[in-house]
Amino acid sequence: MGKKKLARLDSLPDALRAGAEPGSFDLAGMDRAATPGIKDVATAADLRALLGDELADLQERLFAEGRTDGTRSVLLVIQGLDTAGKGGIVRHVAGMVDPQGLAIRSFGVPTPEEREHDFLWRIRKALPPAGRIGVFDRSHYEDVLVARVKNLVAPEVWEARYDEIVAFERELVASGTTIVKVALMVSHDEQHDRLAARLERPDKQWKYNPSDVDTRLLWDDYQEAYQAVLDRTSIPEAPWYVVPADSKDYARLAVTKLLLDALRTLDLGWPTVDYDVEVEKARLAATR
Amino acid sequence: MGKKKLARLDSLPDALRAGAEPGSFDLAGMDRAATPGIKDVATAADLRALLGDELADLQERLFAEGRTDGTRSVLLVIQGLDTAGKGGIVRHVAGMVDPQGLAIRSFGVPTPEEREHDFLWRIRKALPPAGRIGVFDRSHYEDVLVARVKNLVAPEVWEARYDEIVAFERELVASGTTIVKVALMVSHDEQHDRLAARLERPDKQWKYNPSDVDTRLLWDDYQEAYQAVLDRTSIPEAPWYVVPADSKDYARLAVTKLLLDALRTLDLGWPTVDYDVEVEKARLAATR
Repeated sequence: MGKKKLARLDSLPDALRAGAEPGSFDLAGMDRAATPGIKDVATAADLRALLGDELADLQERLFAEGRTDGTRSVLLVIQGLDTAGKGGIVRHVAGMVDPQGLAIRSFGVPTPEEREHDFLWRIRKALPPAGRIGVFDRSHYEDVLVARVKNLVAPEVWEARYDEIVAFERELVASGTTIVKVALMVSHDEQHDRLAARLERPDKQWKYNPSDVDTRLLWDDYQEAYQAVLDRTSIPEAPWYVVPADSKDYARLAVTKLLLDALRTLDLGWPTVDYDVEVEKARLAATR
Repeated sequence: MGKKKLARLDSLPDALRAGAEPGSFDLAGMDRAATPGIKDVATAADLRALLGDELADLQERLFAEGRTDGTRSVLLVIQGLDTAGKGGIVRHVAGMVDPQGLAIRSFGVPTPEEREHDFLWRIRKALPPAGRIGVFDRSHYEDVLVARVKNLVAPEVWEARYDEIVAFERELVASGTTIVKVALMVSHDEQHDRLAARLERPDKQWKYNPSDVDTRLLWDDYQEAYQAVLDRTSIPEAPWYVVPADSKDYARLAVTKLLLDALRTLDLGWPTVDYDVEVEKARLAATR
């Protein structure tokens, strides 16, 4: 497998991108076992591995830029219901680069201190520094997902958050952060099977929480809340990519490709140094 | 290559461990191109890869324990002069496990805020939470290395720090943190060649700083300061491992083995869950 098959992957981002027009992406009609952009899902893991060297190289260039005078960063926002494969994305996609270049944060139920602040307070504190790839396992979108479905705040509060999120993300983009937002979408049947597998296996039971079934019973409400997210927050500066996730290998390949493309757009070189190389060579030679 | 060659690695930790008696390890007499514990350095990278599955498995068990009621963690402290390969250890050793399970921190020149506090203040804030493998790229030992060599504080201040560090580490161990301290030791010639290579390559020049030569000119002072660290802080609860680092492959293998052994001593199982598995299977089945 070589360049030809990788070139075909270039159709993948367009196939997954949710448009900026409300209703341009129909979540209910989506096939979550589909694998847009590749011919044979059996090749997905190998294709991903082939992207690894370039991904690691560009990550190092971004890191080097941040160590000198750069201000740019990348933020990968991962959303999805229980068992959608968020942790697997962090492990198998983010895990392909130098961990020193990552800033991984997961967002659970807000702490008492976090609840005393605006919903974006904890998010801002967790943003990646210059040169890093930030990875959010769940994010500020929980504040229009679980908060909406479970009525954790009044409707006028979550209703206002869509615009607040859009304004926040536009600010981030303007300050040099490239945002990649992926929504991992498993089917109702696949979620059942994955939860069942967790209950079967002693090495997986710790990942299961009885509240997972409570959440599953609200499946339709969550789909509606995700549809609203896509309709209202997929802006041209930071579009949503909706990734069919019944195949873990496909989802990991897709997110790798999206992250790689984001790094490519930064046109990353190596930093110009502010010392005189020849002078330093002479100084070093004198220490032999 | 298989189990037999891996079993031979079991002699490696003893070969690298600095004893608790002052003077039990002679840094000046150490061969930094040696590869104790393996027959052929050409096999080091493959041997390391063979340790990967068990390392990743134990890391996940530690993480699972931390997610339930566990309080244990591991802290890998990496020290070494410029070019000793600290970053490569983070990338190639820590990079073998799920990045979600890591808490990587590097310690540079203290910030003004950090200088207003005791030297252990920033260290305590950076300690790994339960279930994580913390990785320190430089550490509190800088406060008896650069601080001593460059007279950043009065002699009675750094002099007192050895005992303060020992007390601090004993406290950490007692609270459930397993500490693995590795000192990567390159030879004077090898450091020259690595710095020269950074100056030659445009993709490496950003890693070079003119102060690296200033530090190199203080080589003997740093060796003396490292010897004092080994003499005074290699306690049975948290011994130093002095790793010959002229071979990067060897050093990475050695640290992988040391980290793996630390995880093995924790005798990690999978957490017992606090819900009724059969009840949950029935609840889940009802959602099909």
